[in-house]
Amino acid sequence: MGTARIVFDKWGGRYAERLSGVRSSAVRDLFAAASRPDMISFSGGMPEVSEVPAFAVAKAAREAVHEYGSQALQYGSSEGRLEIRVLVTELMAESGVRVVPDDVVVTAGAQQALDLLAKTFIDPGDVIITEGPTYLGALQAFSAYEPDVHCVPMDGDGMRMDLLEEELKRLGPRGAKFIYTIPNFHNPAGVTMTAERRRRLLELSREYDIPVVEDDPYGRLRFEGGHVKPLRALDDEVIYLGTFSKIFAPGLRLGWIVAPQPILAKVLLMKQGADLCGSAFAQVVAERYFRSTRWRRVLQTLTQTYAERRDAMLAALEEHFPPEARWTHPEGGFFVWVELPPYVDCANMLAEAVEHGVVFAPGDGFYPDGRGRNCMRLAFCFAKPEAIEEGIRRLGEVLEDRLELYRAFIAAGAIEGPERGAA
Amino acid sequence: MGTARIVFDKWGGRYAERLSGVRSSAVRDLFAAASRPDMISFSGGMPEVSEVPAFAVAKAAREAVHEYGSQALQYGSSEGRLEIRVLVTELMAESGVRVVPDDVVVTAGAQQALDLLAKTFIDPGDVIITEGPTYLGALQAFSAYEPDVHCVPMDGDGMRMDLLEEELKRLGPRGAKFIYTIPNFHNPAGVTMTAERRRRLLELSREYDIPVVEDDPYGRLRFEGGHVKPLRALDDEVIYLGTFSKIFAPGLRLGWIVAPQPILAKVLLMKQGADLCGSAFAQVVAERYFRSTRWRRVLQTLTQTYAERRDAMLAALEEHFPPEARWTHPEGGFFVWVELPPYVDCANMLAEAVEHGVVFAPGDGFYPDGRGRNCMRLAFCFAKPEAIEEGIRRLGEVLEDRLELYRAFIAAGAIEGPERGAA
Repeated sequence: MGTARIVFDKWGGRYAERLSGVRSSAVRDLFAAASRPDMISFSGGMPEVSEVPAFAVAKAAREAVHEYGSQALQYGSSEGRLEIRVLVTELMAESGVRVVPDDVVVTAGAQQALDLLAKTFIDPGDVIITEGPTYLGALQAFSAYEPDVHCVPMDGDGMRMDLLEEELKRLGPRGAKFIYTIPNFHNPAGVTMTAERRRRLLELSREYDIPVVEDDPYGRLRFEGGHVKPLRALDDEVIYLGTFSKIFAPGLRLGWIVAPQPILAKVLLMKQGADLCGSAFAQVVAERYFRSTRWRRVLQTLTQTYAERRDAMLAALEEHFPPEARWTHPEGGFFVWVELPPYVDCANMLAEAVEHGVVFAPGDGFYPDGRGRNCMRLAFCFAKPEAIEEGIRRLGEVLEDRLELYRAFIAAGAIEGPERGAA
Repeated sequence: MGTARIVFDKWGGRYAERLSGVRSSAVRDLFAAASRPDMISFSGGMPEVSEVPAFAVAKAAREAVHEYGSQALQYGSSEGRLEIRVLVTELMAESGVRVVPDDVVVTAGAQQALDLLAKTFIDPGDVIITEGPTYLGALQAFSAYEPDVHCVPMDGDGMRMDLLEEELKRLGPRGAKFIYTIPNFHNPAGVTMTAERRRRLLELSREYDIPVVEDDPYGRLRFEGGHVKPLRALDDEVIYLGTFSKIFAPGLRLGWIVAPQPILAKVLLMKQGADLCGSAFAQVVAERYFRSTRWRRVLQTLTQTYAERRDAMLAALEEHFPPEARWTHPEGGFFVWVELPPYVDCANMLAEAVEHGVVFAPGDGFYPDGRGRNCMRLAFCFAKPEAIEEGIRRLGEVLEDRLELYRAFIAAGAIEGPERGAA
């Protein structure tokens, strides 16, 4: 985008305050570099859409336009077509959540739902609680409304409820506008919140009277272990975000939000201002795809593909990463989170990795406050197993170079030892 | 949307401040009523998409998915595909505006561009200048960012430049964040800004150093008179909003924004937070439609259709509306603006009109401050000529009923005479 044209910004003094707190997504900025043909990308969470049969989508599009004609081309209702909202209720029922079409508003991907929620709830300075690390797109959406983001650390069982409780006590009557969580196959951390923690989270939410926002893009992409019920299945005051991006295709920009009626009415008002209504065209195509193609088989193939890639990544990490590194073992989803000793700066290492033909997402993008520099998010969803093996090998080399230097410093007593970096 | 379920809003105290200033669009709320089969609707600006051949769109969709495959289904770049941005530059060149693809960001309809611009520029309390009346969707988009909206009156030649200058002088160094204008076939006023006024507007914009936002959804739907060059053709610092909704179909939600590079970079940042990127699927379909179908012929037919409907409406107004009414004579676009004596309250008359089987948009929705109650916007784009004749007849009856009563009051000296209502 016009990076070649450097222009003095005569409008510099005119922008809204919110712009000072908004960062460009480092991952997004890397998409350009990642498109080099020899580049192996672990940076973006891009689904393997080539598994979705193009002919079936083309057929769905043709049939949908023929069947719905002008309806597909016209403005639609702001909440989305009834047919697709019915479809959403069916999909959610399969995950154990009972909702009716009136509980659903269709959004432009779950990303728009994040934006609309933030717009509905956040005044500048309001506290919101997220996991630390958390989804960088959520941080980007929220930051436009100038919140004070408090991060609660995670372990292998998800958000630490003891630390959440401490945080809520510390906040006292000031409270928080909402608690944002990604309970399944967390982005970026790759961990899943246990059933016990989910129950505890809902208890705390009730006790401190703070709504929970459950973001669940990957819930249906489980490779191992049993399904854990969504928070929304246990408490109908939970705000739930879902998306068609991972079970169908992100290119249609279709997601949804389920929320209690009064909140949904406000979100809808915000949506009208944001884009009047979603794409009726995209909605009829999705309706048709889910009604008349073998989408379950496609989803099964997709899940298997991702499982193989996760296995390839975990094996390669074991083989090629230095002993100082720790990483998570995701039971589903797209991401592995790697933690390195605190003296390693991953953002600073990125340019070198790109030179070696591999790209990842530096960890500090997933915190609101510069933490996470010694971490990286590795997306295993997009590269093929052989490329994953090769990419991790390259990245291991870059890391090894860095660590060799640090080990010498440590041996000389110049910096603290690696045991500080263990999770 | 859940109107049947009345729920106590326990979240009432939690919403952001901005919600207190945001109104639901009265027009949108009427869409439900307008869908009664016998209802004649002059309320929404819904294009006659049945003129767009569904088979051509189905074909475009099939070919696009086959040609672009995974690209059509994947996340895309935030600024939009290069191909569609090239198409936009070609369309704009036909209107006399020279831009390059890097000057363009694709948005979810022009409505999203309004939201992103407001998000980029407006802090609570900031002044923005619009025409009075102005597009209600713009007011809805802007209001979420809590601006102080100052309206400059129009006459048959568009925004009154003498009054704009007075306003700018009055504002002094406080200034305004931008001047928002719809120069062609204004929504709702139906008037077009003359070339002379356009030049003057740009002079004032430079003199007072306030950016102009030019919203031009209807520019290519001219029925009579010569093309007037867009503001952006005369000054490359103008921010220009365009849309595919009126030359193709709103159901794809495709619009665009052209702006100077530094502003565009900020808008793009806001877009990433709002929805990551637009729909690649909708973009490839539109690209294919404009590359390989006879879209010019369709646009010609559409324009002719709208011209006939405008003629039908103007003739029916002449025949059925009371002598106290004044209305505009649009040279293109979708809307006629009707002004009634100041003692007539159109919003209050709407329920009665609906009972009579006709619906319109009350004028106060097009002002930020309750003005315009004695006005109505009549959209002639959607109903067929016979329905327009019948709808205006029904509306004329409702009006006649009201005015008869007022005339009696006037005769008795109880309220002021109708000459106050003349434009």
